[in-house]
Order: sequence, then C-alpha cells, then structure tokens
Amino acid sequence: MRIAIAGAGAMGSKFGWHLKKAGNDVTLIDTWDRNIAAIRENGVVARVKDEEIAEKMPIYSPEEIDEQHESVDLLIVFTKSMQLENMLNSLKPIISKDTYVLCLLNGLGHEDVLERFVTRDHIIMGVTMWASMMTAPGHITFANDNGNVEIQCLDPKGKDETQKIVKILTDAGLNASYSENVMYSIWRKACVNGVVNALCALLDADCKQFGHTKEADELTRNIVQEFADVAQYEGVNLDRKEVIEHVESLFDTPHYPSMHQDLVQNNRPTEIDYIDGAVWRKGLKHSVATPYCAFITRLIHAKEDILNVK
Amino acid sequence: MRIAIAGAGAMGSKFGWHLKKAGNDVTLIDTWDRNIAAIRENGVVARVKDEEIAEKMPIYSPEEIDEQHESVDLLIVFTKSMQLENMLNSLKPIISKDTYVLCLLNGLGHEDVLERFVTRDHIIMGVTMWASMMTAPGHITFANDNGNVEIQCLDPKGKDETQKIVKILTDAGLNASYSENVMYSIWRKACVNGVVNALCALLDADCKQFGHTKEADELTRNIVQEFADVAQYEGVNLDRKEVIEHVESLFDTPHYPSMHQDLVQNNRPTEIDYIDGAVWRKGLKHSVATPYCAFITRLIHAKEDILNVK
Repeated sequence: MRIAIAGAGAMGSKFGWHLKKAGNDVTLIDTWDRNIAAIRENGVVARVKDEEIAEKMPIYSPEEIDEQHESVDLLIVFTKSMQLENMLNSLKPIISKDTYVLCLLNGLGHEDVLERFVTRDHIIMGVTMWASMMTAPGHITFANDNGNVEIQCLDPKGKDETQKIVKILTDAGLNASYSENVMYSIWRKACVNGVVNALCALLDADCKQFGHTKEADELTRNIVQEFADVAQYEGVNLDRKEVIEHVESLFDTPHYPSMHQDLVQNNRPTEIDYIDGAVWRKGLKHSVATPYCAFITRLIHAKEDILNVK
Repeated sequence: MRIAIAGAGAMGSKFGWHLKKAGNDVTLIDTWDRNIAAIRENGVVARVKDEEIAEKMPIYSPEEIDEQHESVDLLIVFTKSMQLENMLNSLKPIISKDTYVLCLLNGLGHEDVLERFVTRDHIIMGVTMWASMMTAPGHITFANDNGNVEIQCLDPKGKDETQKIVKILTDAGLNASYSENVMYSIWRKACVNGVVNALCALLDADCKQFGHTKEADELTRNIVQEFADVAQYEGVNLDRKEVIEHVESLFDTPHYPSMHQDLVQNNRPTEIDYIDGAVWRKGLKHSVATPYCAFITRLIHAKEDILNVK
C-alpha cells in the first residue's frame, strides 16, 4: 500500500517506522529541515530496548510535493492541529479521489478541515494510545508498549476499505481495531488533554504534581462537565463518571504532557484552540456556557504571549 | 494617642514609623522573630532618599501581649488576611470597649471578623494607596510618595472619633481623608488584586507582561464583571467602566504584585480566599454565578499545593 505520513514528529515517525518495517511503501512529509536532513541520511532510527534500528524511507518538505509525485492510497495526518490545513493544501498533488485520509491528531473539529479535501467516505477518524518521544532529529524512542489505534470511517460506505487499513496497521504491530463510535473516543481523549495537558502547562506541573493537589478532582469534574455538555450537542454522549475516572487514572504518572512540552519547555504555540478552545467555540454555537474552557483558553494564550511564543 | 499596629511588615512598619515620628505612642506587634529582634535593636529603619532614618518603638509577639499591657485608643490591623482572626484573639488584653480598630488589609469580608471583637461604631474600614517594601528585617523603603488613606466608620456614630484619627494620620504625613463610601474603594481595590495580583501569580508575570497580552482586556472585563455582580448584593454599585480603566492603568508598570511575591517568589500562602475566593463565596450566598473567580481560586490553591506552600 502506498502510504504517506504528514508530520514526522515522534508519532508520525513511529507509525512510518512500523509501516515501512512491515513492507509498505511509506513516504514521510515534514516541515522541520533538520529532521528531514537526518532522516534522509540515516532513515528513522528507533531505539528498541537497547538496540537502534533504522528504517530508510523517502521524506519531503510540503513544498517539494508536486504533480510528479504519485497519489497515495492512504494519507495519515499527524501534524500539529494548527498545521493541518496548510499541510493538506500542499499535499493536494498526492491526494486523489481514491485516497483515504486517516486523522490521528489530538483535538476536536479536524473532520471539518478534512472535508474540504476529501469526501466523507474517505475520511477516517482515529485515536491512538501509542506514545513516542523524539530524542533528536530522526531519532525516536517508544514510550509505551501496550498502545492501540481505534479508527472509523465517517461514512459507513468507507467501512470495508477502512477495515483493510485496520489490518495493515495491525500487521505492522500497531494493534488497530475498527470502532463503531470513534467520536466518543476522540472526545474522551480530548477530555484528558483539556484537563491534564492544559492545566499542567498552565501550572508548570507534571501529571502527578497536578493530580496530587487538593483541587485536581473538582477542576477535572468542572472541565469534563463542560466537555460533556457540548459533546451532547455534537451527538456524543460522554459517560462523565467513566471519563473522569479515565482522566484521574493518569494522576499517578510523573509525566509532562505535550502541551507542557510545547509551551513551557520549548516555547512553542499550543493546541489549546483545538481542545478547550474548540469546546468553548462549539459551546457558543450551541448556546452552552463553557466559562472554564473559555478561561483556560485565554490563560494559555496569555501565557503564550508572556513567553513570546510565535 | 496610644496606637498599636498589628502586623509590622512593609506597610505596618511604614505606618508605625510615620506615626511615631509625629509623636504618637506607638507599639508594634508582629509574628516574625527576626523582624522583632531587628526592630528591638535598631527600631524601624526607613530609607528616605539616600538617608536611613530609625524610629525606635516597642515591639511584641502576639504571645507576649497580656493583661499587664494597657488597652490602646487605636489598633491598626495590617496582618495578612488569614492571620487577622488569630491576631485579634491574642490582642484581646489591649482591646477595650473604647478601642477603635482600623482595618487597612487588602481583600473582602474582614469586617465580619472584626465584629467579633468590637462594636460596629468602633470598626473603621479603610483602604490605602501607599506602598512600601521590606528590604530586610526591620528595614523598609517607600515605594511611592503620593499615597493616601481613605477611612470610614462602619456606624455613623463613630464618625467624629474617626475624623480625629484622620487628623492624626494626616499630621503624620499619611494624607488621610474621611470617606462616605469606603466599601466602594475597598471593592475597587479588590478588583485590582483579583485581576492583576491573581493572574500575575498564576502566569508568573509582572503587571506589564500580563497587561500586554492580547487576552488581558477580556480577562479583566470578565473578572470585574463578576466582582460587580456580587458587590451589588452587598450594597456596593461598582462603576465597571471606571474600575476596568483603573485596573488597566496598572498595565504599564513592570511591577510584581504582592501575590506573585508571596506565591512565586517566596512560596508563601496567598490571600486568594479573601479576594477572588471571597467573591466566589459571597456569590454562592447570593446565587450569583462566579465561574472565573471560582476557577482562579482553585488554580491558585493548586499552585500552592504544587509549590508545597505551607
């Protein structure tokens, strides 16, 4: 299968590495020059136990993609949320009417962007519990070994093709399954990001430090309540109790989540507009009050300004 | 006039220094051993322009106050909000039925505590725009030279005596005036603390850094709105436009406000429960929604926990 992966960060590189290793024809697309140069020279180098295993595959910048590139069967998008639209615009030459696009980004509302590029029966939404870290350009290490991927086509017409993609991912060791309610999983994961990622970035804390404050439980309940209130209007009935327990199950891990890495550690813009900010925006649309999500979004943006994040 | 000042921090020491210099009989009470020792040895040493001027006066810890101490005519309280009640309990020996208590603390709701110790016609509420910094135990420096004090007795019966106190403060160089609506001034100042102090502590920013974020104006409006909504039920009609302009007039000063000093710089507990937290609490009493104040209070407490503040 001809597969392109847009965004060769920690997760995109991990998926590319597995899929290439399993014999697929994989191409990476990334915007970071040093990463492109490193992968061109040595491939994607994954540290597996004490061994470094390299998988060579082509990598391009979005600007290098032109009509001379063949269209792909599957495009997996793994960009940052705010980069998705620009990336897809650059990749039009390799997106044909037969291309399936699998979206594994964190956050909410990406399907609205994807619909501008492919039909709903070719949009596959997904969520993954794999984790990966980039230790240097072109170098990754796996952060867990019990991850999984759930995917679902937005239109039932695409179910059969999507099940073929499930098999390809599973054959590559990525433990995939077809979901009958992937939007639930996406909202559930957004709750984790909306509580733990956002507040750890704001409070400069790791999950465990935040989780052990006396306020963590009430803050979690308040924020999940707003997500659930809005999700209902989007056709997703979150089981609040189950979601709260899921969020709180992360409170024992001394891990700095990605928004902390972005904002505090690397002074990069956060994805807040696609998480708490998306709930605030969707809440406005449905006339649902989301003061907590609004406030978190404003505070994170204020912090971005203070840290002079571009 | 026999005056005691409870809380010999930057502001209490400043007021004590001025009042003693003007010839009053001033006693300080403080809980910090090193401060007590320094003032016992050298008096309160104020840096005025390039000169250090010491004023000697007695200082005691609250535990040292017993029945052998004479009651005072005026007790000025300048403690941290959360210390007020304990301090007043210790000072019962010097509080007679003729003692006036002048409260110059930041924050809201202190009159409820004071009423447990003196009658309303002996409670004087006040607000000051003087500023002072403590540079070492017993050493202060003045942060502005255009401050003022507004005071008002809670009961009109106490107005005449309060006007005598206005004169004593003014004669000591403290530029005092009798206010006909001191609760307005107290709420107005609480808005400054509720926006700028709280958010600078949360975002680890100075007033100017916070004030120059794109979110500062909307955050200010949202928080002042909640203060105004609740103040109305407490008989105070805040002029929102005027208060917002007042808060935003501080956005050009690269100054770390007191809650930042407490929480971030010195890992001490904050007064949040008496500012945003008080608005949240009073809002619950009057069934007024204050999600922003509730959230700020919870986040500041979470930050206190993360920093292991005792």
